[in-house]
Amino acid sequence: MNTFGDHIKLTTFGESHGVAIGGVIEGFPAGVEIEKDFIQSELDRRKPSNHNASTTRKESDRVEILSGIFEGKTLGTPIAFIIRNENQQSDDYEYLREIYRPGHADFTYDKKYGHYDHRSGGRASARETAARVAAGAFAKTILQSKNIEISAHIKQIGTAQTPDEMERLIEQAKNDGDSLGGIVECVIKNCPIGIGEPVFGKLQAQLAEAMMSIPAAKGFEYGEGFKATIMKGSEHNDVYILARGINEYDTDYKSAPASFDNGIKPATNQSGGTLGGISTGQDIVFRVAFKPIASISKPQETVDKQGNPVQLANRGRHDVCCVPRAVPVVEAMAALVIADNLNL
Amino acid sequence: MNTFGDHIKLTTFGESHGVAIGGVIEGFPAGVEIEKDFIQSELDRRKPSNHNASTTRKESDRVEILSGIFEGKTLGTPIAFIIRNENQQSDDYEYLREIYRPGHADFTYDKKYGHYDHRSGGRASARETAARVAAGAFAKTILQSKNIEISAHIKQIGTAQTPDEMERLIEQAKNDGDSLGGIVECVIKNCPIGIGEPVFGKLQAQLAEAMMSIPAAKGFEYGEGFKATIMKGSEHNDVYILARGINEYDTDYKSAPASFDNGIKPATNQSGGTLGGISTGQDIVFRVAFKPIASISKPQETVDKQGNPVQLANRGRHDVCCVPRAVPVVEAMAALVIADNLNL
Amino acid sequence: MNTFGDHIKLTTFGESHGVAIGGVIEGFPAGVEIEKDFIQSELDRRKPSNHNASTTRKESDRVEILSGIFEGKTLGTPIAFIIRNENQQSDDYEYLREIYRPGHADFTYDKKYGHYDHRSGGRASARETAARVAAGAFAKTILQSKNIEISAHIKQIGTAQTPDEMERLIEQAKNDGDSLGGIVECVIKNCPIGIGEPVFGKLQAQLAEAMMSIPAAKGFEYGEGFKATIMKGSEHNDVYILARGINEYDTDYKSAPASFDNGIKPATNQSGGTLGGISTGQDIVFRVAFKPIASISKPQETVDKQGNPVQLANRGRHDVCCVPRAVPVVEAMAALVIADNLNL
Amino acid sequence: MNTFGDHIKLTTFGESHGVAIGGVIEGFPAGVEIEKDFIQSELDRRKPSNHNASTTRKESDRVEILSGIFEGKTLGTPIAFIIRNENQQSDDYEYLREIYRPGHADFTYDKKYGHYDHRSGGRASARETAARVAAGAFAKTILQSKNIEISAHIKQIGTAQTPDEMERLIEQAKNDGDSLGGIVECVIKNCPIGIGEPVFGKLQAQLAEAMMSIPAAKGFEYGEGFKATIMKGSEHNDVYILARGINEYDTDYKSAPASFDNGIKPATNQSGGTLGGISTGQDIVFRVAFKPIASISKPQETVDKQGNPVQLANRGRHDVCCVPRAVPVVEAMAALVIADNLNL
Repeated sequence: MNTFGDHIKLTTFGESHGVAIGGVIEGFPAGVEIEKDFIQSELDRRKPSNHNASTTRKESDRVEILSGIFEGKTLGTPIAFIIRNENQQSDDYEYLREIYRPGHADFTYDKKYGHYDHRSGGRASARETAARVAAGAFAKTILQSKNIEISAHIKQIGTAQTPDEMERLIEQAKNDGDSLGGIVECVIKNCPIGIGEPVFGKLQAQLAEAMMSIPAAKGFEYGEGFKATIMKGSEHNDVYILARGINEYDTDYKSAPASFDNGIKPATNQSGGTLGGISTGQDIVFRVAFKPIASISKPQETVDKQGNPVQLANRGRHDVCCVPRAVPVVEAMAALVIADNLNL
Repeated sequence: MNTFGDHIKLTTFGESHGVAIGGVIEGFPAGVEIEKDFIQSELDRRKPSNHNASTTRKESDRVEILSGIFEGKTLGTPIAFIIRNENQQSDDYEYLREIYRPGHADFTYDKKYGHYDHRSGGRASARETAARVAAGAFAKTILQSKNIEISAHIKQIGTAQTPDEMERLIEQAKNDGDSLGGIVECVIKNCPIGIGEPVFGKLQAQLAEAMMSIPAAKGFEYGEGFKATIMKGSEHNDVYILARGINEYDTDYKSAPASFDNGIKPATNQSGGTLGGISTGQDIVFRVAFKPIASISKPQETVDKQGNPVQLANRGRHDVCCVPRAVPVVEAMAALVIADNLNL
Repeated sequence: MNTFGDHIKLTTFGESHGVAIGGVIEGFPAGVEIEKDFIQSELDRRKPSNHNASTTRKESDRVEILSGIFEGKTLGTPIAFIIRNENQQSDDYEYLREIYRPGHADFTYDKKYGHYDHRSGGRASARETAARVAAGAFAKTILQSKNIEISAHIKQIGTAQTPDEMERLIEQAKNDGDSLGGIVECVIKNCPIGIGEPVFGKLQAQLAEAMMSIPAAKGFEYGEGFKATIMKGSEHNDVYILARGINEYDTDYKSAPASFDNGIKPATNQSGGTLGGISTGQDIVFRVAFKPIASISKPQETVDKQGNPVQLANRGRHDVCCVPRAVPVVEAMAALVIADNLNL
Repeated sequence: MNTFGDHIKLTTFGESHGVAIGGVIEGFPAGVEIEKDFIQSELDRRKPSNHNASTTRKESDRVEILSGIFEGKTLGTPIAFIIRNENQQSDDYEYLREIYRPGHADFTYDKKYGHYDHRSGGRASARETAARVAAGAFAKTILQSKNIEISAHIKQIGTAQTPDEMERLIEQAKNDGDSLGGIVECVIKNCPIGIGEPVFGKLQAQLAEAMMSIPAAKGFEYGEGFKATIMKGSEHNDVYILARGINEYDTDYKSAPASFDNGIKPATNQSGGTLGGISTGQDIVFRVAFKPIASISKPQETVDKQGNPVQLANRGRHDVCCVPRAVPVVEAMAALVIADNLNL
């Protein structure tokens, strides 16, 4: 469905080339000061930029807040916001009525719904993630007040793990009319101990669900991830140490009595910040794998809806790699997950 | 929380060394014939066996069905079942009151709940997955009637990818008092087109959430997964072909009109069976990474709850590797996900 | 919370004097033709009119649909709509910053949220029901295609049960600067057999929840309602008759086989259309009690937030009785309940 | 469905003549001391007793707790409990295979599910409420620790409002082989201010849903209820007074700052304890109407499933009036609603 979260719930709506996209945030606490500039600045991070990997298409993406805020502070009522779509240029997409673009959702949307918006993916367009980023900015406002930091970065583009090499691969893909995938890594710092709901709402399960709902995501891992499969228990286990005198933990968690913290903590963090699906208070570290963008200008031999062979070469302006723009989306989804679990 | 699913919902309960574990399945359709022997046989697949990797502990795991079935068929009312715990031997665990076992959830359960059952992990024990397997058997009963097959297998144990090599590594780990991780791969065949709910309930998001809720899971990927990150768009995209005359699709899906199937289908399946979060009708292929088991007999240098150094060597009988027993659990969770989405 | 429904879900947002009110409908089936004029005409039924009981305030209430519809038909994606607020005239409400209006929610919103919109009730204003009526019109579009009719009417205003007497009481209340309550009765015709989900989602429980969420609702009853408490079992029970050859039932319900209908039906309908929380196929009949409107121009002796005695006489233009305008709201909520249960 | 609540969730299961009925409570806070005797004593209040109105059938109704409690205190994990069914005497009900009992759910269960348990109503039996009462006892344990009192009583049986007159009517109905309905009134004292979630989760909407899910409930009203429809606004509004110096409110509610309580409170309580769907801190008062019991020994002229006329005279031992036994059920559901909203 189109709603995410259990306590702070985000419902998003909108097709890429419809009137507007947007969202409604329910369960957001009252009395929180909202800086509209911050919301907009997070949205701006997702905009196509001069970054080599991105489209030259103009998306101004101005957010309009419709409800839930009064005199600069939240009311505890639903926060609705919209981002109007511009330059809809529907005619540009007329030729897509008769074809399923390889690697896109046209095929499955047609099969599932019978009636779909063929213009640039409609609801399946990555444009939908703008609403997530706006909502994530609201969530971050809460997290910042609790000193919780969420920071994602590009770990890998194609096979490249250094900026220079990434730039080179992007340039080459652009020249080839091709596209690239990559990996985003995210670290959550100062997450309180005790976040996560066994047994099905384990924190890693919530994060995995959130990340795998991002367009183009193909994999999720946390802590040592797939590498853990080749480690021994004696290597992977985090033993405990005594850290008495050092207030390294937020002990202000729900039912925990003030004197609860006995100074014991894991000495290492192979676990990636959770045990039994509950946060340990250590950094939560996870990675998300993204496939190469499906829209490429290199011609693809496919068939149209009548089965006639066609050569499809993408005509629109598209990113070469979604990874740079996925960074704020990963952060936004992580922020929503953590805020949702804070029991505010 | 302890409930999984939106339409067919499983709620599980029970601590490893409490009176019983069990589950309640809501939303299961009426009139389905249930073979109790099949439910039990699925449970038996999860039992510690003669397999080298498993504990020698006896768990008879007899399922008792309490409600929802009358004269051999489901009533459409909640199906409750329990599995009583045997040989609780609580005294064996008394020494664990004063220690958090490395790699286990003792630490986080204590921090989150203040009061926890220290006996072999309580609710965090992998024993909880028996209820999932029993419920998965109910889900499989539905899937079988629709010819949907779910089949998981061991892809890797430690670094080993062949049975002989796996056996060798397990033997060695056992001798070392150590443990191993690994990868389970699962394939879902004949899944109808159209399964999955954009944008947050994408099929891969549901599967990821399901799999990452299994104890010891550290990663999830589907289709090409992490390998997709180093592919080009032109390599990864699945182009379409015409397969007219061949009834390769179940077109009996919800709103699809009888004449809907135009014979177009993806020629390849790099995507792993979904596009835009919706099933394509092709095989759904995913993999789950499991960490090495935390309980090892090799001594670990850690501290007790007072911060005193202790050397912990696991005294219980435990598996060397969870992967063989995880296979039916992965299948069960996959079956629950698919059945939940069938809109019965 | 601000979401209603399990399958077709409505989330509403907006404060009375904020930028806009609106809603998002999730789970609405794809391919349904939507007549925007019908949506608007339903909204117009709720508008203050020349009816004696209503305010003379102008509310144009134009609905704008933002998503979920493409080329006149639903996409199966979320349908978002907004109604912008006009004539916000915030200064008119400045004096309400310092007072809790008797019978209104100012007091409890202030206590619960700490920060609230004092302008005409903010989120608690009955203006919020406009979003329900718009959403109800979407639901009715589905119901009409299935021949399900929902029709509410004024049963009583104050003590009056005839139009003439109602008019007289309204005129008198207006002259007195006072207000009136009343009863709305609603009948649902041609509801398929089998609607309602035991044990907590009984159809009457869903309807009661829906109706009691309408501002000013104080009571709900169905069938014989409170009168049933003084009937004998022998009077209240509906015995069965054979109605063979007459196709009085929609047998096209979910799991029911084509040959299922054996022609047996209840001979009478004291039950009000449900048994065991499941629809019988007969008319579903229920009534909702509304209190008199809290805003009156007659002076009330109360205290301000500092405890100083004040005499409050409502200055705005308000209805004398909410019952006429509640009629389309009751219908809308009933339509949402039934559509939600159709398992589309 | 069979789950009630949003934070503290009760899932019930079981048919009247199946193996057992029971429930699972999720979201119950950790560390709460549970007195099993109290749980049992609440169940005992619901048992058929020597009260004239009740059946002479023996139901020992011993509750067995399976999980969620360790060393006398809750673990924060799901609490599962069962009550085994005794004296199933299935043969007694064989004649009911061929008939729909008037006023019972046999008809609708058959239509909806195709396959149903004909033995005394199966899942639709009021026996199901035993699980609610057991769960309600857990909820009451929380409420008691917060000094919140829930107390229901018989307001009316048939037309009788005094004990003597009730006794007389019951005796007469018993002699006539007939049954009676009535009204239960419930008062919740010391409910904190701020309980209830606009706009669809208004406290009265939650209570209405809860009460209308009880078998035989036909109506719900709170505060002045249906009587409010004939009151004027000037009569019904509760004006405010200053109660400074008197700590009449629990101000320890969520976001409310310590200095928040300004001593203003409603002078009267026509509203019945909520404004805008949020508790005022005053007594919450509501009433539930129950129909006469459908099972009567007086012969009823009806038809069997083949349409043959039959004279049905109830052979089992049944209550004459459900109202006395409904009292603890009403309390249990109210306790679950309030506990669910406490945001523990």
